[in-house]
Amino acid sequence: MPNSRLQQQLDFLKEIDKLKNILRQTILMDGSRRENDAEHSWHLAMMAMVLLEYADDQRVSLSRVLQMALIHDLVEIDAGDTFAYDEKGYESKEQREKQAADRIFGLLPEDQGSYYRALWEEFDAMQTPDSLYAGAIDRLQPLMHNIHTDGYTWRNGKVNSEQVYRRMQPIRLGLPRVWPMIDEWIQQAIEKGQILP
Amino acid sequence: MPNSRLQQQLDFLKEIDKLKNILRQTILMDGSRRENDAEHSWHLAMMAMVLLEYADDQRVSLSRVLQMALIHDLVEIDAGDTFAYDEKGYESKEQREKQAADRIFGLLPEDQGSYYRALWEEFDAMQTPDSLYAGAIDRLQPLMHNIHTDGYTWRNGKVNSEQVYRRMQPIRLGLPRVWPMIDEWIQQAIEKGQILP
Repeated sequence: MPNSRLQQQLDFLKEIDKLKNILRQTILMDGSRRENDAEHSWHLAMMAMVLLEYADDQRVSLSRVLQMALIHDLVEIDAGDTFAYDEKGYESKEQREKQAADRIFGLLPEDQGSYYRALWEEFDAMQTPDSLYAGAIDRLQPLMHNIHTDGYTWRNGKVNSEQVYRRMQPIRLGLPRVWPMIDEWIQQAIEKGQILP
Repeated sequence: MPNSRLQQQLDFLKEIDKLKNILRQTILMDGSRRENDAEHSWHLAMMAMVLLEYADDQRVSLSRVLQMALIHDLVEIDAGDTFAYDEKGYESKEQREKQAADRIFGLLPEDQGSYYRALWEEFDAMQTPDSLYAGAIDRLQPLMHNIHTDGYTWRNGKVNSEQVYRRMQPIRLGLPRVWPMIDEWIQQAIEKGQILP
């Protein structure tokens, strides 16, 4: 087969079009409809660019963080979106996502598939400077959506302040200079009743 | 005002949520609905990652190309999407997009706004290794959508082969090793009547 490497790459790039149909719990900031994973991934990457100066660790590589942001939800093509505060869903999340990663990254030529698979695992583990920063941004993006939609997913999920503070912990670690503002936002959302005490 | 720099950055990141509502002529590969600019920008960035080895110029910086891909359509929040084969729309496109760039990049702190504005202008001019590669990918992405949707926007726009070859010229320049396959795709689309001769 001539140029089967290119064909594998194009097959992968066709397959990932499906990310545009994976809906999240989050709604757009104008409240008009639910956001999908492709839009979320783009917004995350934009936030990682614009807020880079606040990264706690100066070794953060923007190129690696952008790649992480762009691929981090590809597994949801098969595994679906698990709502951040769905504790039951989280029990099976790991297994479902690993199987999805096998299939989806497996569409690529072996060298590329392994590279993105490792990058996704690094993102998920949040132990390196790049993934701590990317993980913090991945918490901040939906938080901003909640702030601008009267706490839409918090109210829908009847989420309490302990759950929110646990979920937002990566922002405290990865974006410490931004944290005081986030803390203030959460306090205000509690006062408004968007987050249960 | 304490931390007004961060506030400007967050205002910009809120404003660009609107890109998710700017519809393109292209439809998703499953034919279900029109694609929006945020989804397109994400897909473009993914393609730039996966196809980097085919870039004509080895000096291409992935980090700069990804940033270009992510911001290249922000001006359409104000200026709207101009269909690639709409010659009348193209007459006013430049002026509309420059005004949009003034406003949208102007939301950011001056250093960042200037940086992204310059990156957008570089993308638009397609004269540097990074922008030639990014521009080629920006032609390839909707082409792939047409291939997988029976030439949807070609048929809708009654586009002829001369227009398509002119529009796809950046792929020939920026991705010369991919071009023979693209040429074959276009020829097949002409044979199928998706593109007028």
